[in-house]
Amino acid sequence: MRTLDHTHDPHARSWIESANSSTTEFPPQNLPFGVFQADGLPRVGVAIGDQVVCLGTLAEAGFFNDSLGVAIHDHVDLTGLMSLSVAERRALRHELFQLLTDPQSRLATDSRLRQSALRSIDQVQLLKPVEVGDYTDFYASLYHATNVGSMFRPDNPLLPNWKHLPIGYHGRASSLVVSGTEIRRPNGQLPPAQEGGAPTFGPCRQMDYELEVGAYIALGNRLGEPISLADAEDYLFGITLVNDWSARDMQRWEYQPLGPFLAKSFATSVSPWVVTMEALAPFRGPAFERSLDDPTPLPYLQNDTNAKTGGIQLQLEVSLLTEAMRQQGLAPHRLSLGSFGNMYWTLAQMLTHHTSNGCNLQPGDLIASGTVSGPTRDSRGCLLELTWDGEYGKPVPGSQRTALKLPTGEERLFLAAGDEVLIRGWCEHPERRTIHLGECRGQVV
Amino acid sequence: MRTLDHTHDPHARSWIESANSSTTEFPPQNLPFGVFQADGLPRVGVAIGDQVVCLGTLAEAGFFNDSLGVAIHDHVDLTGLMSLSVAERRALRHELFQLLTDPQSRLATDSRLRQSALRSIDQVQLLKPVEVGDYTDFYASLYHATNVGSMFRPDNPLLPNWKHLPIGYHGRASSLVVSGTEIRRPNGQLPPAQEGGAPTFGPCRQMDYELEVGAYIALGNRLGEPISLADAEDYLFGITLVNDWSARDMQRWEYQPLGPFLAKSFATSVSPWVVTMEALAPFRGPAFERSLDDPTPLPYLQNDTNAKTGGIQLQLEVSLLTEAMRQQGLAPHRLSLGSFGNMYWTLAQMLTHHTSNGCNLQPGDLIASGTVSGPTRDSRGCLLELTWDGEYGKPVPGSQRTALKLPTGEERLFLAAGDEVLIRGWCEHPERRTIHLGECRGQVV
Repeated sequence: MRTLDHTHDPHARSWIESANSSTTEFPPQNLPFGVFQADGLPRVGVAIGDQVVCLGTLAEAGFFNDSLGVAIHDHVDLTGLMSLSVAERRALRHELFQLLTDPQSRLATDSRLRQSALRSIDQVQLLKPVEVGDYTDFYASLYHATNVGSMFRPDNPLLPNWKHLPIGYHGRASSLVVSGTEIRRPNGQLPPAQEGGAPTFGPCRQMDYELEVGAYIALGNRLGEPISLADAEDYLFGITLVNDWSARDMQRWEYQPLGPFLAKSFATSVSPWVVTMEALAPFRGPAFERSLDDPTPLPYLQNDTNAKTGGIQLQLEVSLLTEAMRQQGLAPHRLSLGSFGNMYWTLAQMLTHHTSNGCNLQPGDLIASGTVSGPTRDSRGCLLELTWDGEYGKPVPGSQRTALKLPTGEERLFLAAGDEVLIRGWCEHPERRTIHLGECRGQVV
Repeated sequence: MRTLDHTHDPHARSWIESANSSTTEFPPQNLPFGVFQADGLPRVGVAIGDQVVCLGTLAEAGFFNDSLGVAIHDHVDLTGLMSLSVAERRALRHELFQLLTDPQSRLATDSRLRQSALRSIDQVQLLKPVEVGDYTDFYASLYHATNVGSMFRPDNPLLPNWKHLPIGYHGRASSLVVSGTEIRRPNGQLPPAQEGGAPTFGPCRQMDYELEVGAYIALGNRLGEPISLADAEDYLFGITLVNDWSARDMQRWEYQPLGPFLAKSFATSVSPWVVTMEALAPFRGPAFERSLDDPTPLPYLQNDTNAKTGGIQLQLEVSLLTEAMRQQGLAPHRLSLGSFGNMYWTLAQMLTHHTSNGCNLQPGDLIASGTVSGPTRDSRGCLLELTWDGEYGKPVPGSQRTALKLPTGEERLFLAAGDEVLIRGWCEHPERRTIHLGECRGQVV
């Protein structure tokens, strides 16, 4: 577990005034990394208030040591930073914190440097932060797995393996896109109308989102060399918001026996900012408390540190903005509010399980948590679960599902053309500055 | 379908004498690409007889046009060649064929150039030919799917979707290794001894191989832009041998509901040489002949060209060399001989289905066929199927399986320490020179 230091001091202030606002997503305690486009080139940056600081410009101006400079300059994404040692990562955080909080720092006092290194976030294009090598998607919420299992396999919702290991599968890395990228409704095979019938091919009719949290891998391990749970946290660089868009009708038809494939691989959105594990340190807490009836995890998947601090106290919100809402000038409508603390398996357990067979993770690989759903109806992380039962509107004839009613009077079972899904996430604690993950948005076209 | 030209002339001879031997794997009609290490650097090469020609050396000597030179030089693997246009790929084949068959070519007559460009294959280290971005594994043999389905789901061996679409799943790209790399037996969760029991963690006890054929993607497509079946062949660069090592006990426990994960991701071997679609042109033939009871594929998955020439007449052989056989100086023992013509779905159908939802493929991505099994017992492509029933040795008490008997008197249900699996593949036709895919080998340690 990472210890707290002065970079977590809730009273620390930046000389960049917007970073001290009580509503800012990026106070000096946060310092998330991202990639933005400037002068036609991708640049690695850190967010502070409403500004982004170009690390390449700082490196050229003589900040940072050599290996850090190389890590920043030789990559068009965050893979370089993700290849740094734990000590180098921490040193970078401390150096940036000092630069951005000390009004006597060279960056604060050199107006030419400041002008070339700082940009307004509003005025740059944020790019995909990492060209991910391999992307793995887990299925780590007990509530989600039980809900979805009840729909797909009513007799057998939670399979016998589920509480013994973090179930996961390989996802498609090439179709990861950054927040803001339009999402095209996919074509695909849709299930036969009746058993034994033939499928049809056409646009997906049951398009859904999935609220997830992703973690980018730092350092990496060699093939054949597992990472123990005791070491796992060092191999996590930071977290991000993920929308694992899902074509439910395609998924139902294709997923057996080898798992989801085209129902997912048409697009997966990630947020532009990566909040480091160092920034999250004040918000770590207990892992999910298992019921006394639950099996004890095998030794490689448990230790005291993980039980006490493997969780992240992270709030997650999903909102929807329809075309009609946009026309009427309405704000996005909240669909759910959940907590990452509801996940049955921790990120460290996922990582350790992933490498337990010797599989090699590489810096910049992405592991996602699976849909984050909680025990209550309003903390369910996808439409499939939200419209499954209860209280939202009209029951659907011949179905157990109930349409979601929106402020415009519109109803939704699944996403319609023009719908925009917005995911936000933040960590709050009475004694700390709130830090945000930013936003992951995507519109169905 | 690619037409035949003089590079397919069965009478063509090379001035490199070893390429004219009736037993060579690499006559001038083949010209497979690979990557080898020379002077500490990875180099792109083409195999001819017992030699490999360094394309970088030829480019430096003024061969090839600019874009080809860049494709060769700017990459440490074959991704550059896989990014070329169809016309450029063909032009490269023609230029290499001319250089290697014309005794008056500059390469044939310039002894200094020849000396720097040619190496004996025996004396170089062959590397992984491509750093694969995304790896997809299909499940396209009806015989394999039916056999394995009968074992895993006796009541329900072939699921209703199977004959309507090429079932596939995302594999792990980072653990692809080149032939010759030792394969470490993975640790993992092994299924409970009885239903409702707890799993154990330890070395896999049911380690298996899977004989597969892989195809590397050329050109690639943009996200949201499917590739039609009519165009699919242009997006295939060439084929390779794949051993999809499988931990059957881990697989049985983990695979539901999201598919195989750690049972596969500890290692997947690929052969070092990539045989181009141009070289395969004389060996193309009808796709699998479906039974009259089988459903007609949806329109996006069928056309006349695919039915008539979507298949590849490729023989595939698996052999086993145990530690005892090695000590007794015995040759590898053939376990199976099968044909890629037995695959229900063609590579073009797999590729078209893969992109039908808009998923983007990138140059150098790998799609593998799934285990190649035929209708007869001796054409089954993995031990799980080979030892399932009959004639090989002693029935296993309490099981429907029968151990495989080896010439040493040893028996195998699954792979033992020191076992080496060797896969070979070749295309033969009475009127053509036989071309080989080379070898994919791996030893369990």
